[in-house]
Amino acid sequence: MKQLNKYIDHTALKPDASKEKITQLCAEARTWDFASVCVNPCNISLAKELLAGSDVMVCTVIGFPLGQNTTAVKVAETEDAYALGCDEFDMVINVGKLKDGCYDYVRDEIAAVVAAAKGKTVKVIIETGLLTDGEKAIATRLSCEAGAHFVKTCTGFSAGVATVEDIRLMKQNVSGDVKLKASAGVRSCKDAVALIEAGADRLGTSAGIAIISEFPKA
Amino acid sequence: MKQLNKYIDHTALKPDASKEKITQLCAEARTWDFASVCVNPCNISLAKELLAGSDVMVCTVIGFPLGQNTTAVKVAETEDAYALGCDEFDMVINVGKLKDGCYDYVRDEIAAVVAAAKGKTVKVIIETGLLTDGEKAIATRLSCEAGAHFVKTCTGFSAGVATVEDIRLMKQNVSGDVKLKASAGVRSCKDAVALIEAGADRLGTSAGIAIISEFPKA
Repeated sequence: MKQLNKYIDHTALKPDASKEKITQLCAEARTWDFASVCVNPCNISLAKELLAGSDVMVCTVIGFPLGQNTTAVKVAETEDAYALGCDEFDMVINVGKLKDGCYDYVRDEIAAVVAAAKGKTVKVIIETGLLTDGEKAIATRLSCEAGAHFVKTCTGFSAGVATVEDIRLMKQNVSGDVKLKASAGVRSCKDAVALIEAGADRLGTSAGIAIISEFPKA
Repeated sequence: MKQLNKYIDHTALKPDASKEKITQLCAEARTWDFASVCVNPCNISLAKELLAGSDVMVCTVIGFPLGQNTTAVKVAETEDAYALGCDEFDMVINVGKLKDGCYDYVRDEIAAVVAAAKGKTVKVIIETGLLTDGEKAIATRLSCEAGAHFVKTCTGFSAGVATVEDIRLMKQNVSGDVKLKASAGVRSCKDAVALIEAGADRLGTSAGIAIISEFPKA
């Protein structure tokens, strides 16, 4: 198992996040050497600047948090973030289309975002809190078919949190080397370890420092 | 006062809204002759098709609900929705930038969306639930300076609902013929009438039929 800090996407997505808040987030991510900071698109440039020379990546969100944009706009948002130097892209699926059985639409949209990210990491948020177990399995499989690098549980802005059960279910449905990200409600070291043991390779959380601080030293 | 039905933007913005739900929304809007249906961008085409030949407009949301996209992406989303035939555009301001005192940024972004809407109606959601009274006044004035047609209270996806106090405060700060839209938490005819009396010219609600049905007949 890699070091716990490298599991963490240090996250600040609230709409009223100030420049001071993003500055603090990036300083913390550098100190603790987290995997990435996860920020809204308007904060990519600031985060890139603040994290220059570190190996902390900048992750942003696409079509967030509703996922109800057109495919063209999700692609445009990915291209814009790519041009700003963003390293990772966490996109939200179109839950309504999934529920309507429009699987080609959902798969093609993910594939279009993957193409726009030009080889950089795309994580697909399936918003588990709105889905049945059957829909979670389908959304996971569609993400893999579309070439995504990760499947991710939740936005944190809708119903639901990351659960061990959902990570296990998603683990059973991923193919190839597609990884899992657990996000929303990951508050403690106990949560983090349970989700990693269930199969999560990345954790989206604003409680990264608390989680690391609680971790027993080897 | 115009007929109550023409105050109502009949609204369905949940991420899991099905085709059946949007179809029902449009049928209801046609029956009750509401001002518009307010739907997510991925549902514009369906709504335009279902409302052809009626005078019910199709309204969509831009940068919704966080408003933390880059300006370029808000503009691209507006252009995309315009090309799909959308009639009205409800955009979310960048609350973080407002709180940081970046007033030129906030004003220029609204002006860019207004330009992309090519003369069609733009409503600016200031997300009152996240703002102080002073910030609400500033956001209202910036919207007017940028050429917006309406200032609107809330997304309904964050803190806060439309209040009579906020509509009064916004009314004191609008200039020219800029109108107000009250949205989030507008559930009853009593709410609707109080908000209209305070100065609202449009109501964003999913309870339009209940509101109209409760209205005393002349």
